[in-house]
Amino acid sequence: MLIAIFYLAITVEGMTAALSAGRRNMDWVGVCLLACVTALGGGSVRDMLLGNYPLPWVANPHYLLVVIGAAAATIILARFLDRLKTAFLLLDALGLVTFTIIGCNVAIALEQPLLIVIVAGMITGCTGGVIRDVLCNEVPLLFRGELYASVSIITGVIYLAGEYTPLPHDAVTAIALVFGFALRALAIFRKWEMPRFVYTRDWH
Amino acid sequence: MLIAIFYLAITVEGMTAALSAGRRNMDWVGVCLLACVTALGGGSVRDMLLGNYPLPWVANPHYLLVVIGAAAATIILARFLDRLKTAFLLLDALGLVTFTIIGCNVAIALEQPLLIVIVAGMITGCTGGVIRDVLCNEVPLLFRGELYASVSIITGVIYLAGEYTPLPHDAVTAIALVFGFALRALAIFRKWEMPRFVYTRDWH
Amino acid sequence: MLIAIFYLAITVEGMTAALSAGRRNMDWVGVCLLACVTALGGGSVRDMLLGNYPLPWVANPHYLLVVIGAAAATIILARFLDRLKTAFLLLDALGLVTFTIIGCNVAIALEQPLLIVIVAGMITGCTGGVIRDVLCNEVPLLFRGELYASVSIITGVIYLAGEYTPLPHDAVTAIALVFGFALRALAIFRKWEMPRFVYTRDWH
Repeated sequence: MLIAIFYLAITVEGMTAALSAGRRNMDWVGVCLLACVTALGGGSVRDMLLGNYPLPWVANPHYLLVVIGAAAATIILARFLDRLKTAFLLLDALGLVTFTIIGCNVAIALEQPLLIVIVAGMITGCTGGVIRDVLCNEVPLLFRGELYASVSIITGVIYLAGEYTPLPHDAVTAIALVFGFALRALAIFRKWEMPRFVYTRDWH
Repeated sequence: MLIAIFYLAITVEGMTAALSAGRRNMDWVGVCLLACVTALGGGSVRDMLLGNYPLPWVANPHYLLVVIGAAAATIILARFLDRLKTAFLLLDALGLVTFTIIGCNVAIALEQPLLIVIVAGMITGCTGGVIRDVLCNEVPLLFRGELYASVSIITGVIYLAGEYTPLPHDAVTAIALVFGFALRALAIFRKWEMPRFVYTRDWH
Repeated sequence: MLIAIFYLAITVEGMTAALSAGRRNMDWVGVCLLACVTALGGGSVRDMLLGNYPLPWVANPHYLLVVIGAAAATIILARFLDRLKTAFLLLDALGLVTFTIIGCNVAIALEQPLLIVIVAGMITGCTGGVIRDVLCNEVPLLFRGELYASVSIITGVIYLAGEYTPLPHDAVTAIALVFGFALRALAIFRKWEMPRFVYTRDWH
């Protein structure tokens, strides 16, 4: 099931990245590149930090084709996507949670300590969007108030905590998925925000 | 011959990066750093993604000295470089194609599948300029309409396709070099551009 | 002693990054993430470039907790930090020099050639700040005139040169630390700057 959601997630991440690229008037090749970097960047950075080779898309090059296909579909269908805004936000939330759990699994398989497992989940879920924003020359959304990294961290904590209960592994995965997804959906619709740190002195 | 063109290519990439740094009024050390990151960044990112260590400039530290020398020469000779604009653009095109073929060769030696070989060539040819533009706080040129990544991809495809013909390896390399170079040169002089994806809704 | 200064250095780097995040009105999670990336990014990039795994914070996850604690303390104590500007600048200078020597030591342990040892020291000392500035959507300070990379390079050269003298290793370390620190402090207070390369033609 995680694998099915993973394909859905890279498709959705690729499509939202393609829309970001369109807002910057990028060309078709740029749209596809930005989609690939966004959808596959999180897992790539995680594995480069952990020294876990080969990277996912190198071992499974068809991931690239899935994301390029999603980007191409976005270019063609852009005019129809406006009505799907809510669906996209929810699918993106599902992707965030799925990526997080997959990232945790990778770090667990590498026998990393608990803190690194949580961090690996968060990097997998969040880094793609950071790279997208840097390439679009914006301060990453991740740092600016949305409950995004927080949802990823909480999802990872629930997932890890569940492993210490007698619940079967699949049930723990499902609980973490549902809880993380619900939290992110609530954050979107209720416009929950993290408090900000506002500091106005300039030292330079 | 590829090796000779490689040295020419890192020199040219270092010089164009130094000019970018000059437009941002960077200091001399910053100019040299930006030149190194630009000229050697593509191959470094490729090898970090493929887990192929040591990186080229770690195995051959004199590459750094070549690029620093090129950056220093650019600082000294900047006033004379204006007349060489066309020569620079053509040498940069030659560098793009050379980097691409070198990147393909690295991935072939690692026995990667065909799609990864093409991607490795494109990363080698294009990523240095992306890092340069990010460090200069600009949306990378690569994403904005020029036939640059496309030329790199097409060069890689020609190079790989040639290996399935009875032509000798050196002839295939030469054909890919000449064809990719000609395509890029035509794109420059005829101002060929990729179509853009323009999307104006803002979801955030 | 280097280890004690290392903890001080990641604390200070985390705090100055947190202040940068506050100037951008980032949320609390963003502040902690930016602090971690800044304080631990230099050593991570060095080890990823050298293929030296595991990365420092993966092997010692408590580094993350130290930096997150420093970032949290900064959020709470920000109003009192203004008076400590000079102390911060000096501690940051100490961190730069300490990171540089630690980076040199890593490359020496990997039996890298001298030039790579110097580069590894500079990457360790300077890259964290570059990543911070890129994520804050600014042209990195490193490239813009301050004697920062230069101090790191000179510290590395002194440290390496000292190894060829009959002085004991600890004395060489202390000399490089003190000299590099003094040079950076002088550069701050006397406003020494590197000459800039100003180039005004735009080719694009």
